[in-house]
Amino acid sequence: MGLAERTPPSAEEYAGWRKEFCNWGRWGADDELGTLNFVTPAVRAAAAASVRSGRTVGLARPIDTFAGPANPYPAHHFVACEESGGMLDYIGLFIHGFTQTHIDALCHLQTHDGRFWNDKPVGSQHMPAEHSGTIDFWSQGVVGRGVLYDIPRLRGAEHIEPGHPVMGWELSDAAEAQGVEPRAGDIVMIRSGHGRYFELHPDESPRFASPSGVHAGAVEFLYRTDAAVLCWDWQDAPTDQQGIPNPASHPVPLHVHHILIPYMGMPIIDNADLEALAVACAEEGRWEFQFVCAPLVIPRGTGSPVNPLAIF
Amino acid sequence: MGLAERTPPSAEEYAGWRKEFCNWGRWGADDELGTLNFVTPAVRAAAAASVRSGRTVGLARPIDTFAGPANPYPAHHFVACEESGGMLDYIGLFIHGFTQTHIDALCHLQTHDGRFWNDKPVGSQHMPAEHSGTIDFWSQGVVGRGVLYDIPRLRGAEHIEPGHPVMGWELSDAAEAQGVEPRAGDIVMIRSGHGRYFELHPDESPRFASPSGVHAGAVEFLYRTDAAVLCWDWQDAPTDQQGIPNPASHPVPLHVHHILIPYMGMPIIDNADLEALAVACAEEGRWEFQFVCAPLVIPRGTGSPVNPLAIF
Amino acid sequence: MGLAERTPPSAEEYAGWRKEFCNWGRWGADDELGTLNFVTPAVRAAAAASVRSGRTVGLARPIDTFAGPANPYPAHHFVACEESGGMLDYIGLFIHGFTQTHIDALCHLQTHDGRFWNDKPVGSQHMPAEHSGTIDFWSQGVVGRGVLYDIPRLRGAEHIEPGHPVMGWELSDAAEAQGVEPRAGDIVMIRSGHGRYFELHPDESPRFASPSGVHAGAVEFLYRTDAAVLCWDWQDAPTDQQGIPNPASHPVPLHVHHILIPYMGMPIIDNADLEALAVACAEEGRWEFQFVCAPLVIPRGTGSPVNPLAIF
Amino acid sequence: MGLAERTPPSAEEYAGWRKEFCNWGRWGADDELGTLNFVTPAVRAAAAASVRSGRTVGLARPIDTFAGPANPYPAHHFVACEESGGMLDYIGLFIHGFTQTHIDALCHLQTHDGRFWNDKPVGSQHMPAEHSGTIDFWSQGVVGRGVLYDIPRLRGAEHIEPGHPVMGWELSDAAEAQGVEPRAGDIVMIRSGHGRYFELHPDESPRFASPSGVHAGAVEFLYRTDAAVLCWDWQDAPTDQQGIPNPASHPVPLHVHHILIPYMGMPIIDNADLEALAVACAEEGRWEFQFVCAPLVIPRGTGSPVNPLAIF
Repeated sequence: MGLAERTPPSAEEYAGWRKEFCNWGRWGADDELGTLNFVTPAVRAAAAASVRSGRTVGLARPIDTFAGPANPYPAHHFVACEESGGMLDYIGLFIHGFTQTHIDALCHLQTHDGRFWNDKPVGSQHMPAEHSGTIDFWSQGVVGRGVLYDIPRLRGAEHIEPGHPVMGWELSDAAEAQGVEPRAGDIVMIRSGHGRYFELHPDESPRFASPSGVHAGAVEFLYRTDAAVLCWDWQDAPTDQQGIPNPASHPVPLHVHHILIPYMGMPIIDNADLEALAVACAEEGRWEFQFVCAPLVIPRGTGSPVNPLAIF
Repeated sequence: MGLAERTPPSAEEYAGWRKEFCNWGRWGADDELGTLNFVTPAVRAAAAASVRSGRTVGLARPIDTFAGPANPYPAHHFVACEESGGMLDYIGLFIHGFTQTHIDALCHLQTHDGRFWNDKPVGSQHMPAEHSGTIDFWSQGVVGRGVLYDIPRLRGAEHIEPGHPVMGWELSDAAEAQGVEPRAGDIVMIRSGHGRYFELHPDESPRFASPSGVHAGAVEFLYRTDAAVLCWDWQDAPTDQQGIPNPASHPVPLHVHHILIPYMGMPIIDNADLEALAVACAEEGRWEFQFVCAPLVIPRGTGSPVNPLAIF
Repeated sequence: MGLAERTPPSAEEYAGWRKEFCNWGRWGADDELGTLNFVTPAVRAAAAASVRSGRTVGLARPIDTFAGPANPYPAHHFVACEESGGMLDYIGLFIHGFTQTHIDALCHLQTHDGRFWNDKPVGSQHMPAEHSGTIDFWSQGVVGRGVLYDIPRLRGAEHIEPGHPVMGWELSDAAEAQGVEPRAGDIVMIRSGHGRYFELHPDESPRFASPSGVHAGAVEFLYRTDAAVLCWDWQDAPTDQQGIPNPASHPVPLHVHHILIPYMGMPIIDNADLEALAVACAEEGRWEFQFVCAPLVIPRGTGSPVNPLAIF
Repeated sequence: MGLAERTPPSAEEYAGWRKEFCNWGRWGADDELGTLNFVTPAVRAAAAASVRSGRTVGLARPIDTFAGPANPYPAHHFVACEESGGMLDYIGLFIHGFTQTHIDALCHLQTHDGRFWNDKPVGSQHMPAEHSGTIDFWSQGVVGRGVLYDIPRLRGAEHIEPGHPVMGWELSDAAEAQGVEPRAGDIVMIRSGHGRYFELHPDESPRFASPSGVHAGAVEFLYRTDAAVLCWDWQDAPTDQQGIPNPASHPVPLHVHHILIPYMGMPIIDNADLEALAVACAEEGRWEFQFVCAPLVIPRGTGSPVNPLAIF
């Protein structure tokens, strides 16, 4: 079934999305933008024109250098020891994971038969074999209209509950409740309430997983609305909340990532902090704003740490 | 003398700027924004409103992992070896230097008597002793009006010549020639022509220095126009082109950095790539645009790698 | 009480060891060897002369790059990504912890009133303020007679049991049972049975702690026998097994480390793998051998990863 | 021609060594020791028995964290910034190059037709495709008889001169002059005089090369004497001093490395500091001693930083 029926996709329907929502070749065999193609200059101009108060909200978590179950390979903030060589402080981090706010490039994940976006080959160590699908092709930044889909607010809750992932049709509901019309080229920002959840559950510490998150059904919404980018605070809902097997042979659930990155060609910004944004939207009385995100230009990188901004 | 007389500052006048252009306490003893205070919401709103075509230009150089005289401590783009632990690729870099595009926080440099911005103490290894003046206070980003001061264009040249640094009054000249009125809160972007210079001098390779750059006199322009941020492709002009001794006991010339960072409280974005921006400004017919730069939120960091954007 | 009475030290006796077992000044105010002074050329010659079969046993664990509770800050084995700068593979690691085999230099830990070995000052970030007590002073290596104190063998067990740490008098017992006479300059190697323990407890995974380990009483044995170095597979027994409060304000128990490193000036080699050595000793029929350990020459380092060798 | 005739090999003879000095299969298809096979327990026992005074000499250079032409990818000695996660100091380095003292594993270099030692496949980024030829197979250490071939002493000079590399027959000459008989399993240590050279040429700084070094002809000596390991302070002599083209398509000369590592299966310890050893040998009146070198156990590493020791 689907969004209109307010039912989640079956495992078969989901598997069919590998074809149905596949954008390979849509923008040419050498396309490096994927759904960023929906962000036209006109879209960017309109987003800038929507700015009213000039209020800005940063959407990144602080870089986390502390080890923990959610942060097994912590970032590094180093300074050279006394009488050693170097130039003040050094920052180092694995781009991906459940902790650092980062954007995934299109070479980040493979299809189920081992290819990258637009049918490019996979190299060793899961890195791209060719210089394609990498983050440096987005050196001009991601600039457009951001829309916050505040699902806890929709549900009248502080955060979504484990066991109750964000369903695809709730995105339409949220848009309606927030007075926003989804448009082609949108940066769709789904708030589950990560920050609020751990504030209210101080005895629970983050694990290398999202306690809950977004159901695979959101993929259909993203495809049908010609969204350009997905940005979220919690990632793919746990497999046992999906009703669909994990599409990738991976301990981490990847139901949404799996269709978006290698098939649909849609960038994903993981681990955003959307708490201040939710407050700002409520105060500003609108859930759409100019969105700006500029990846570092890492040649052949599979992504980049980022600090996306919302500008009202 | 000064800008109006089209004369460079003498060594004594320059030394006097440590008092005359000092903003300590101007915004309170615990201020963490420095001249970013000039970027009000109204300034940000106006900058967004100036967007017309939606064209964006990235201003960062690619992260450079190759060793060389200009890049003695190269960045790292690593992947874990086969059968080793990690999470795909890792990016690591010293924030500062002459290669990576980065923004300096206000704790980056000391006054001549060993204090940081707003009279804060210096710790070991030249790092801040307190959690002040660090990059994480700018998590909300730097968003405002960018103005490109294209000095080679002003001079009718491809790039500035070694021996002929950018003088303070040339900034006024460039503004006039480009039909731009300097405003409070501007991100002042000074193009010397780094990219074009090395294109035309292929046998010369970059050293740990700028062949030429900006003269100390630019400091007066920045102060008097209530600029918020300096962004440039070449840094402080060599000391023998300044006519003023290097104010810091440092092999690298720091005439502009030295007043801006610890005294004036003005952030500096180093090593920008302004070539594409110069072309875009000429094509768009204007040298002002929306400017967005979002530092990574590095707790207690002295700066951050960045990819600033210009939006037309 | 003490070793002779086969009783553990009381908290007061232990505290008294800060004076009683303190070697400050014993070898001069600028000594950098501590108890390595007991390893004379004659000791080294005798150890070499004890070699019979030429059998060698490596005593290091493989460098561990995988995150886990026992390895919160994993080592790195990286290679530069395709088309990036570098020189084949890179190895990086925090020296200390519960995973990598390493030797502690004398500046590794402080006295309870904040000084390093031989009354040297502590700098920022717990690093030495002066170039003293650091690993580079041991560039000539640690070469001497190693003696394995196989406590599980003494107890007729596979490994020591949690709750039953290695007591000081058991070292004398083990020496006797193994037909070895402790001598000045010995490298005392205490086997708790880390490897065997986790082999037999596959469902238990290592934590950032030793399930059991060595009781503070071992300190007296080390002092009275003029030992030169301590080498072990499990570290200080948990505080609740010591009957003495943790002498350092640290979550990790440090009862043995605390007297040895800053007061007695005795190097400690942590996280050794003594399983193969125990087997070799049993096969060779002797528990003494030539011991060789060469720290990397890390200027101002607090220690070094090492792969110590036993030569029969 | 050859050693007996005191003539260097021609380019053709050198090329023929790829077959003539190839040890593939000599110790089995899955051999991981190469010429370390010559170091039998008896050899090790004899070496230990040769120890007389107990004097030890460390043979490693200090880890170098300072950038320079000889050290383009410097090592790192870091400590975590204040309020950041980590565990005291961190040491990181690229294993290879011209600066850090390290041992090459047998997978370090390829044959001219792209295979590793014992016909193993090459993977991506020049790393081994299989877990073979890697440093972790030498976890038991390299222990045997070291022999210093002090060529400057032979020549009555402070160091060898650029333009006058160490020729193969000079190794026989040095052995004779030093009263040493080459034996199977020897660790052959060739001193060119790196330390003394730069002491006497303070205005010259090391480059990413050896000013002079060892001629390809030394390969024949190593093969015919059944040497186990090569250890040296300067590496392969510059190509223009060899009279033989560089066998590998590499800017760095590799005439000796190229036959030893992938064909002969001989480990090489690069960048040793042999100055103190030369002095010790002269004082002790002998140029043979017990040699001990223990690589870190880096799973799948292509080598390891080491601090080899000579024990008299």
